[in-house]
Amino acid sequence: MGFFAEIDEAARKNNSLLCVGLDPDPDLLPQGINPLDFNKAVIDATSNFVCAYKPNLAFYEAGGLAGWELLEKTLDYIPKGIPVIADAKRGDIGNTAKAYASAIFTGLGAGAATVNPYLGFDSIEPFLDYKDKGVFILCRTSNPGASDFQSLRLTSGGRELALYQLVAKKSNEWNKNGNIGLVVGATFPEELKVLRQAYPDMPFLIPGVGAQGGDLKTAVACGINKDGFGIIINSSRQVLYASRGRDFARAASSSALKLRDDINMFRGL
Amino acid sequence: MGFFAEIDEAARKNNSLLCVGLDPDPDLLPQGINPLDFNKAVIDATSNFVCAYKPNLAFYEAGGLAGWELLEKTLDYIPKGIPVIADAKRGDIGNTAKAYASAIFTGLGAGAATVNPYLGFDSIEPFLDYKDKGVFILCRTSNPGASDFQSLRLTSGGRELALYQLVAKKSNEWNKNGNIGLVVGATFPEELKVLRQAYPDMPFLIPGVGAQGGDLKTAVACGINKDGFGIIINSSRQVLYASRGRDFARAASSSALKLRDDINMFRGL
Repeated sequence: MGFFAEIDEAARKNNSLLCVGLDPDPDLLPQGINPLDFNKAVIDATSNFVCAYKPNLAFYEAGGLAGWELLEKTLDYIPKGIPVIADAKRGDIGNTAKAYASAIFTGLGAGAATVNPYLGFDSIEPFLDYKDKGVFILCRTSNPGASDFQSLRLTSGGRELALYQLVAKKSNEWNKNGNIGLVVGATFPEELKVLRQAYPDMPFLIPGVGAQGGDLKTAVACGINKDGFGIIINSSRQVLYASRGRDFARAASSSALKLRDDINMFRGL
Repeated sequence: MGFFAEIDEAARKNNSLLCVGLDPDPDLLPQGINPLDFNKAVIDATSNFVCAYKPNLAFYEAGGLAGWELLEKTLDYIPKGIPVIADAKRGDIGNTAKAYASAIFTGLGAGAATVNPYLGFDSIEPFLDYKDKGVFILCRTSNPGASDFQSLRLTSGGRELALYQLVAKKSNEWNKNGNIGLVVGATFPEELKVLRQAYPDMPFLIPGVGAQGGDLKTAVACGINKDGFGIIINSSRQVLYASRGRDFARAASSSALKLRDDINMFRGL
């Protein structure tokens, strides 16, 4: 079964389009908790309310060897049936991209990866070649600096469009295996709308609600496809650090449940 | 001492602008050699002929936990006085970029990192904040797909220019700490020339000679600054896999020495 079919299955089972980002930040962890126990408790507390988990590799690499081990153990702990998106944002030339794809899909066993388009097709192709894996191409990211380059207008094939739109257009052309999705930040709802209109069937991974300030209702309204699916809304800090005390797991559970239900309400369910 | 001063010192000591990429690819390693012994032998064989080493993190991450350990041990083995460029091509939103910068500069202790500009300033700033570290921003990469986006023309501040030129322009503006360099592939010598003319003092990291087909003489001619410095020419496969037999270290040594001397010849030394 391909990644996006797995996402659909998890989404229907848990009635959820919520993805929880597993980003254990040493500066934010509740006192006295080690990051593996923290991740496990968060997974236990949220696994009925999500369609995916998304560990960002940065927070593991920051711990060096111990961090990489933490990542592997965290992935091992995620229940079968809940797909994992390795948020790695990799982008390198062909033979190197092949090594990254192997690291993420074979080594870590993740179901999907995020990748950066700046190096063009041959940097993404080795990921796409894993037909059962998902590949989320960064399109319009959620951060302030996204506007430095992504929103600039250029001319391609006689049409004027923004760089992020061209990335989406190319991604659509590259999507021979039907395993591409786009990363589009909730902080740019207009762009989300434009992209949904242009690509009615492309799955969107949407970060940027919560700590980054994106409005959930608007993001759902702008991103949803005609069937009420097609979006994966990610939340990391809003769930993980809902409480920084001993009750962090209960707080994460409540926060994830509320997010899931809010998303469903905005979907009209 | 800042990274670029360290590079200068190593370059003068070894009379070399050559960087060797330490990318142990399991498919290319000589038979019966483990990757750590391979890296150590290559370092022993080349350390008098280089100004830097550049491990690409992909080839280590592909090995999982053992790969990360290999990376740490390889870095430990590199002689003091030869700076290390962690070729990671990272790019993520602010708080995540902070974790990546910590992983590379504090965790691994590398002297410099490569970063991807697609996410804009706040994705690069956490790296720049390490004033004594070098930050190479991907500008015009050496691969075929580089043209998918990097060469497209856009309008910014009333001027028409290519995306890679705008990345260079922004990089120059962001260079408050004097610790930015650009990655410009030897496979695009015209672009290298344009960039050198526009930024006479910016250090360039130049991959793409050898296996990727870039011409060394042209790259040196187009990239060099008025003092005969300002470039770091990277070679990975041409050195590492000069022979795939038992004499790989001797072959790597000869290949590195020849590359160093060729670069110097083309510098007019």
